[in-house]
Amino acid sequence: MHQEVDTQTNLERLEIARNALISAKLDALVCRLPENVLMLSGYWPLCGDAVLVFPAEGDAVCIIPETQAEEASAEIWNAQICTYPHGRHDSPDQEREIEACLIDLAKKNKWSTIGYEGTYEAIAVPGNVAEPKVPSKKFEQLLKSAMDKATFIDAQELLDLLRKTKTAWEIEKIRLANEIANIGFEVFFNIVDAGRSAIEIAGAIEQAIMVKGTGYKKARRVRAFAQVAVGKKETSAGWRPFEVTTDRKLQKGELAILELAVVADGYWADRTRVRAAGSTSSELQRLNDIVKHAQDAAISAIKPGALASKIDEQAREIISKNGLGNEFVHITGHGVGFRYHEIYPILAPGSTHVLLPNTIVTVEPGVYSQDFGGMRIEDDIVVTNQGPEILALFARELS
Amino acid sequence: MHQEVDTQTNLERLEIARNALISAKLDALVCRLPENVLMLSGYWPLCGDAVLVFPAEGDAVCIIPETQAEEASAEIWNAQICTYPHGRHDSPDQEREIEACLIDLAKKNKWSTIGYEGTYEAIAVPGNVAEPKVPSKKFEQLLKSAMDKATFIDAQELLDLLRKTKTAWEIEKIRLANEIANIGFEVFFNIVDAGRSAIEIAGAIEQAIMVKGTGYKKARRVRAFAQVAVGKKETSAGWRPFEVTTDRKLQKGELAILELAVVADGYWADRTRVRAAGSTSSELQRLNDIVKHAQDAAISAIKPGALASKIDEQAREIISKNGLGNEFVHITGHGVGFRYHEIYPILAPGSTHVLLPNTIVTVEPGVYSQDFGGMRIEDDIVVTNQGPEILALFARELS
Repeated sequence: MHQEVDTQTNLERLEIARNALISAKLDALVCRLPENVLMLSGYWPLCGDAVLVFPAEGDAVCIIPETQAEEASAEIWNAQICTYPHGRHDSPDQEREIEACLIDLAKKNKWSTIGYEGTYEAIAVPGNVAEPKVPSKKFEQLLKSAMDKATFIDAQELLDLLRKTKTAWEIEKIRLANEIANIGFEVFFNIVDAGRSAIEIAGAIEQAIMVKGTGYKKARRVRAFAQVAVGKKETSAGWRPFEVTTDRKLQKGELAILELAVVADGYWADRTRVRAAGSTSSELQRLNDIVKHAQDAAISAIKPGALASKIDEQAREIISKNGLGNEFVHITGHGVGFRYHEIYPILAPGSTHVLLPNTIVTVEPGVYSQDFGGMRIEDDIVVTNQGPEILALFARELS
Repeated sequence: MHQEVDTQTNLERLEIARNALISAKLDALVCRLPENVLMLSGYWPLCGDAVLVFPAEGDAVCIIPETQAEEASAEIWNAQICTYPHGRHDSPDQEREIEACLIDLAKKNKWSTIGYEGTYEAIAVPGNVAEPKVPSKKFEQLLKSAMDKATFIDAQELLDLLRKTKTAWEIEKIRLANEIANIGFEVFFNIVDAGRSAIEIAGAIEQAIMVKGTGYKKARRVRAFAQVAVGKKETSAGWRPFEVTTDRKLQKGELAILELAVVADGYWADRTRVRAAGSTSSELQRLNDIVKHAQDAAISAIKPGALASKIDEQAREIISKNGLGNEFVHITGHGVGFRYHEIYPILAPGSTHVLLPNTIVTVEPGVYSQDFGGMRIEDDIVVTNQGPEILALFARELS
């Protein structure tokens, strides 16, 4: 039985994080990135302006505009919420309000060493995906001046370490995002046909996931980001780390690749399927079988202690021995869960990463060529002591 | 006649930017934020990793992964494109590749003072909206070490100044985003009815905009972000700087607020409409009339030289004299175009901003109460010497 994932607290995460702070001799962590605020408080920020102060001892404090109080209260575990007036024409300056909360916290606590998000590059969007807010240098200055008795340490490495493995609670949330992604695959398998445009396919998938995903097993805020390539030219470029969805229409027998990101309450799934418009050639079927076998081989090698490079090798060997080694240009997989792409582990030749229990990885072999186009199959797999567990199964047939 | 907006170069912007650099005694600007890369090169970054080096003299250089070369070449004006291998399992380290391009540029040019994006907080998403990449402190260090003969100046103020007014080319692009937003309004007006859920309405709008917007007047990459509140409780909270779209269903006579962001090739529209499920009360009709009159009054006061606070006052007066002053809690408007919300101008009580020709502002009065719910009407208006020009008209009726 999977664990229930509604209103309970992720106590496992809180304990792991507190222990990590104690080991690192940090008295507190201050987070702004929505993905880290979520991990340590349960609140997936509506906008990017939540500030989470997470101490090694005692409850965390989440500093948010009062406009977010209702939603934050419903999502947050046992952090205290510190609100300030916001969003009205006569509201005070937001930075000064955050500063005041931080000064107050510094006074009440004798924190001498505080970690913060010093170095980040890729970020996961907050609920308001159109306009993320990021912790700028200005915020760093504000933080350091408001809590000026403390020494500040870049805690990026510690945060990355915390994210390497997922708790049972998080795995259920990421499973939920994967189940919701299947709603999109269902639409994809039904809609792909001659005459359909890539953008039409993407639009239908995003709509279905948003409408059917919201409320699914109590999911509150759900969005999909579907990238669809159609036809030989577009799919042959499908190895790039994005697809550009155009209004080009599928012709009979052609392939469509769906690269699909789903976020459900801040937790991410990253999946891919390929589908043919109607019946397709035996050659494309054969290639699809090779990719399926490559995926199976990589997945079955997943276990705690396995070398990430060996997982990649499993997939690459199958593809190479079918004469397609040069057509499998990208890596076999990457971490996923708190973000669409996480930096650990990387399943690639030469990767020195080692799989840990409760790590979640994508396994996504693919082949691309100007001769036949491109195809890739991608699922999210959790590393367990009993072996690999695919978070949500879905058919992998071309037609 | 509106200007054609397809493949020509925004020479006006290039000239303004070069002159601004010369006045500020900057030899070059280095930008990473997609919104600034777009403004100065014409390329709306597919991911957030494009680096634009824009000199006061000579052509700009856009440093991008080779995976983006095709799309960047199609969009970019007269910048040179400097690509590096990326996206393959054996591609070299991205940071070292960017560094090498920057070192090369530093050698070839005698730049002594370079501006960069030192302070930012809100950002506009790149084409890959799920996972923006942001110019971190690490990038700043890389930049300063690669171009170590130069002095670096935070150019945020200069960039903000450049964005205050839009060129004819940009106005046409923002008009296009507004016309595409009307596609969403059309769907909204048709779909709002008893039994429809907020998420169903939002999904239909986003889908329509994506499908019909892509290709509309040659628009390449189009997305919508629809936030819908339904019923008294949700719409009464509609004054907040976001709506949370739930699966709650509309009941007969209830209102739905649509807060709609549209991005078309990197240019943004920000619009709002309200619609009733079927026929509605004369009281709600009266309130809608008041909001319409408030919007009309504010819009008609828009002209070059007008005080932003006076525009706000026009709307606020109409609403106040109808006894609803306390129900109009937010500001009247803000800048829009390179981002969903721009920092200049702010149309609010006490704002010291002065409207300039070719500034684009939203005008969005609204009233909110637990008694009747909430409503807001929002359009994007360009300040011209001939007065206000609404970028795309659309009906404002409740039913």
